[in-house]
Amino acid sequence: MGQKEWTFRAIGYVRSCFTEWTEADVMRQEESELVLDPEFVEGLEGLQPGDVLMVLYALHRVKEPRLKVHPRGDPTKPMKGVFATRSQYRPNPIGLTGVRVLAIEGNVVRVRGLDALDGSPILDLKIASDLDRPPDPPEPAR
Amino acid sequence: MGQKEWTFRAIGYVRSCFTEWTEADVMRQEESELVLDPEFVEGLEGLQPGDVLMVLYALHRVKEPRLKVHPRGDPTKPMKGVFATRSQYRPNPIGLTGVRVLAIEGNVVRVRGLDALDGSPILDLKIASDLDRPPDPPEPAR
Repeated sequence: MGQKEWTFRAIGYVRSCFTEWTEADVMRQEESELVLDPEFVEGLEGLQPGDVLMVLYALHRVKEPRLKVHPRGDPTKPMKGVFATRSQYRPNPIGLTGVRVLAIEGNVVRVRGLDALDGSPILDLKIASDLDRPPDPPEPAR
Repeated sequence: MGQKEWTFRAIGYVRSCFTEWTEADVMRQEESELVLDPEFVEGLEGLQPGDVLMVLYALHRVKEPRLKVHPRGDPTKPMKGVFATRSQYRPNPIGLTGVRVLAIEGNVVRVRGLDALDGSPILDLKIASDLDRPPDPPEPAR
């Protein structure tokens, strides 16, 4: 069914104090910076402190995709299909995390809530919206 | 800062009754199907009807990325940076939508709430989780 491979260009990278795998809940308490390539700065216009951003980034350190994983990497939990988890070992290593915008300073967006390692390539930033949740079910017929 | 280009492979495609651009709110009321390549079926294990899935897909019909857009394509709304919107005209044409799982039948996941055109290449499926929202702020010091 058409084209199979899709190539995307990093629009910037993550600056974080975390350089090695760390539990997401720990990483998410700290601040990180989204450092955009200067040519994309115009795309930040209208973004404000307090906004929620969905950050799409490449899981650039992951080398082994898997189809079954232990949820949260916990071997005591029964294995599940990777699409029923948020494991980093995915057929396409794309990370997705919702973060809070703290400040925008030129080409740098300071955020809290990211779980991406230092140097992670950023693929996209999307303001959170009702697209992130399924719509309400249709009204039942009367 | 390291590798700039990232190539991903479609893991399947969207089957939808919409073949031309249509308002997202209209598309999202209808059912769609996520048709996975058979080799990825194992990755669906544990997924259940009622679950919310974040669908990442290639906006395969979009040819002109933009940095400033009218929100929701409405020319009466002042232009904004693309990262402060969900416009399809993005530097990297990746779509993200949260959908409700209705049924899983082999390699086909029937969903409601998707706004992707027929034939859209699927890049990833991720079960919704607390990663989609920023964590609560830290407790204030006392």
